[in-house]
Amino acid sequence: MSTLQDVPLAQAYRLLNHGPTVLVSSAHDGRQNVMAAAWAMPLDFDPPKILVVIDKATHTRQLMEAAGEFALNVPCRYQAQAVVAAGSASGADCDKFAASGLTPMAAQRIGAPLVAGCSAYLECRIIQEPHNQQQYDLFIAEVVAAQADSRVFSGGRWHFEGQDALRSLHHVAGGHFFVSGDTVSGQP
Amino acid sequence: MSTLQDVPLAQAYRLLNHGPTVLVSSAHDGRQNVMAAAWAMPLDFDPPKILVVIDKATHTRQLMEAAGEFALNVPCRYQAQAVVAAGSASGADCDKFAASGLTPMAAQRIGAPLVAGCSAYLECRIIQEPHNQQQYDLFIAEVVAAQADSRVFSGGRWHFEGQDALRSLHHVAGGHFFVSGDTVSGQP
Repeated sequence: MSTLQDVPLAQAYRLLNHGPTVLVSSAHDGRQNVMAAAWAMPLDFDPPKILVVIDKATHTRQLMEAAGEFALNVPCRYQAQAVVAAGSASGADCDKFAASGLTPMAAQRIGAPLVAGCSAYLECRIIQEPHNQQQYDLFIAEVVAAQADSRVFSGGRWHFEGQDALRSLHHVAGGHFFVSGDTVSGQP
Repeated sequence: MSTLQDVPLAQAYRLLNHGPTVLVSSAHDGRQNVMAAAWAMPLDFDPPKILVVIDKATHTRQLMEAAGEFALNVPCRYQAQAVVAAGSASGADCDKFAASGLTPMAAQRIGAPLVAGCSAYLECRIIQEPHNQQQYDLFIAEVVAAQADSRVFSGGRWHFEGQDALRSLHHVAGGHFFVSGDTVSGQP
């Protein structure tokens, strides 16, 4: 039985608030692709917007610009090897889902696939900002649907206790990641 | 003796690559301020650029727009309480360095102060992009100097083993953070 649950759009920013590495999935005209990206973050709360940096040289860039849509998938510790594989090859040369051992699954509101087995999903529609896209490889998008694995995200909060395999990945460099660790709190 | 070392500018993106919460410090015309921000990330490698989202309602916004400069400071686990304090009050009403228990120190190339005791520093000059600033509260800046604490960052890499108090903070919500945890790796 699936443990995926819809996340209210006003809470979607919390899926990226802690700075995880993401997988960007895209599709257009019968082709699909997935790539790793460390540079994604929230931009606004409600309606939720996100930022992601996607290099002009990538196959993902072609697909997402053509479709006007993409998804951000938040991968888990157990997927570290697949994330590095998805960040290494180019989807112009191979089927990166197959090459990375990742499985596509249907999204709710966009044509791009999601990556099965991730901890969270943000389905995104590009807000056209040609100057940012051309000058900085920077994309602004609205989040139109969000889901998360209720084992580690519920009530608007991440909770990884007892689910070490599902902890988020935070890219250091060269295929090395920190996983999200202990929780600490401060008082306002 | 200080453990701070200069970080080559081409490696500055690695100070933010793993998605830490930052403190934004700013100064103009004899006033200075510090605030917490979860929404900051790299935008480019060399020359290094970063993105940060700063709400129009903040005192920091006034100071950084007036000065054209600010610093991103990467705070540590032991500073979690101060980070929450710096994210709660407004610098328009009080001296937030004093109110948060944080100590300013001189930057290398900008007028804004740095926050003493952080693990890394990026001194930034704003690249004027009025549409992004007005429409999205989004700032693009070039990193003109970078430093890190050599106990936890050297040779272009973070290494927190044996330095738990210096681990980075990743904001979940409401003053709760994950700290950077174990390291995992994949093979390209």
